[in-house]
Amino acid sequence: MSLREKTEWIAVDWGQTNLRIWVMGAGGNLLAERSADQGTGALASDGFEPALLAMIEDFLSDGKTTPVLCTGRAGAAGGWVEAPFQPVPCAPLTHTSFVTAPTRDPRIAVSVVPGLSQISPAPDIMQGEETQIAGFLQANPKFDGVLVLPGIHTKWVHISAEEVVSFQSFLTGELYALLARQSLLRPAIALSGWDDAAFEDGLGESISRPESVAAKLFGLHAAAQLSTLSPQAARARLSGLLIGLELAATRPYWLGQNLAILATPEIGEIYARALSLQGLTAPVSDVTPLIREGLMAAYESLIAPQD
Amino acid sequence: MSLREKTEWIAVDWGQTNLRIWVMGAGGNLLAERSADQGTGALASDGFEPALLAMIEDFLSDGKTTPVLCTGRAGAAGGWVEAPFQPVPCAPLTHTSFVTAPTRDPRIAVSVVPGLSQISPAPDIMQGEETQIAGFLQANPKFDGVLVLPGIHTKWVHISAEEVVSFQSFLTGELYALLARQSLLRPAIALSGWDDAAFEDGLGESISRPESVAAKLFGLHAAAQLSTLSPQAARARLSGLLIGLELAATRPYWLGQNLAILATPEIGEIYARALSLQGLTAPVSDVTPLIREGLMAAYESLIAPQD
Repeated sequence: MSLREKTEWIAVDWGQTNLRIWVMGAGGNLLAERSADQGTGALASDGFEPALLAMIEDFLSDGKTTPVLCTGRAGAAGGWVEAPFQPVPCAPLTHTSFVTAPTRDPRIAVSVVPGLSQISPAPDIMQGEETQIAGFLQANPKFDGVLVLPGIHTKWVHISAEEVVSFQSFLTGELYALLARQSLLRPAIALSGWDDAAFEDGLGESISRPESVAAKLFGLHAAAQLSTLSPQAARARLSGLLIGLELAATRPYWLGQNLAILATPEIGEIYARALSLQGLTAPVSDVTPLIREGLMAAYESLIAPQD
Repeated sequence: MSLREKTEWIAVDWGQTNLRIWVMGAGGNLLAERSADQGTGALASDGFEPALLAMIEDFLSDGKTTPVLCTGRAGAAGGWVEAPFQPVPCAPLTHTSFVTAPTRDPRIAVSVVPGLSQISPAPDIMQGEETQIAGFLQANPKFDGVLVLPGIHTKWVHISAEEVVSFQSFLTGELYALLARQSLLRPAIALSGWDDAAFEDGLGESISRPESVAAKLFGLHAAAQLSTLSPQAARARLSGLLIGLELAATRPYWLGQNLAILATPEIGEIYARALSLQGLTAPVSDVTPLIREGLMAAYESLIAPQD
């Protein structure tokens, strides 16, 4: 049987800067995987279908409609189709809230996953992370506690009874990138390298004196000018300062809770280290397969006989 | 008498992105003023003299050497000549610490003002602000307390007995610019417009819960997506959040102290409002003439008969 014939459905993660697809066969069998730097940021609404078709053409058959499940920014305002945010508390993915995207090609039927929103205690949104959470809960259905999803916009998510109860987003990763690459600090911060002691110092200072962070940030520049800190140590210290600020803010969230980190191994390790310095153990789950696993769970519920 | 003949000396403020000169006659008489977007950032060490000559050629006379006093980034490493930082506590400007810049043209003799450095309680530097402080102290020699110099890198400076005792720099202005113009928040933040209540809310929240700022920053994005905050209010709120963080950090510095703000009137007003909400009165001095006045005071001491 050809790949084209074996294809049962297609999972899609469409981010701001990247498009990734998984071609799925019967029984959750992964047939193929592709990615391209064709994010939603560069596309008008009517550009989504041709961009996707160019990626999946090889797997489509005439006379057969292949379901496509799409998570990420495709469901944002100005995306392929706006999928209204689902207010928490709710399950991270519920197939009844999926929105059908308009298509011309009869070979595909595209469902877009909505993000989650929260009004109180503070306005917040997530789009994409709900699918990672669904993937994690598929493997850990009994998990009750707090998930940490570090990244450009880190999320701390309270999970109970397979639902997202509440969440908090932080600009930590974006702040790091702006400061390290586009600010006065750029020459002071190495692109790689690490120093555990500098990380721990920064972390501890931000946790105990979170208000001082803007001064400590300028201090990285001053220390570089006065040659009292290496660029590698400055990199670790900057990371520690920003993650420490986040831990200070989320303390009520993580105190006495079960914790798990969903991240790429490198970033997961940094957060696990930061939490262990607070006396907490947080296992790291590699986030990479979780999107696919979340979409697989959603697909199963979508095709399951309805009660 | 021609301008050329009247010219006694020239004051120069050479910043990262801008060059400004004041042509001074006898008795501190301002003869002319010019500026250009020729900052130190774009110049190699041997590019400074030709760039300056192009600006002041009209005011130089053959057979006469005109003193030039230069503050700002010209004295930084990689600038015209490196002027070693003066460690605090010290007077903001001391002519004996000025450094002579190498020149080929016999019509000018260039002295570069050094910045100030601090090792403890935290490594810190200033370069350019020391001249503004000298200008302020020229008019207010008895000032004892804390000066606030808001800007891209805000400085809080403890002054006693005409000396800089210690100081703290904050990345506040640069954080504002990065977040408002280059981050996820860009579409959420208006370029102008204001909302007093939003400013006060942001300020109060950061002062009482400084650790929450990275979450509150993401909240500006979420609120924009959920249409619960106007871009004008978001602009004021962002300003309040970042200045509040600074006030939380500097509280030990300003509690019970005399305060004065050296700033452009618009930013000065915002800081004065923020401080008045803490029950503090801080007069605003327009920072624009202070650099020239600081250099004038330095010039007077330079030409005064030495003891």
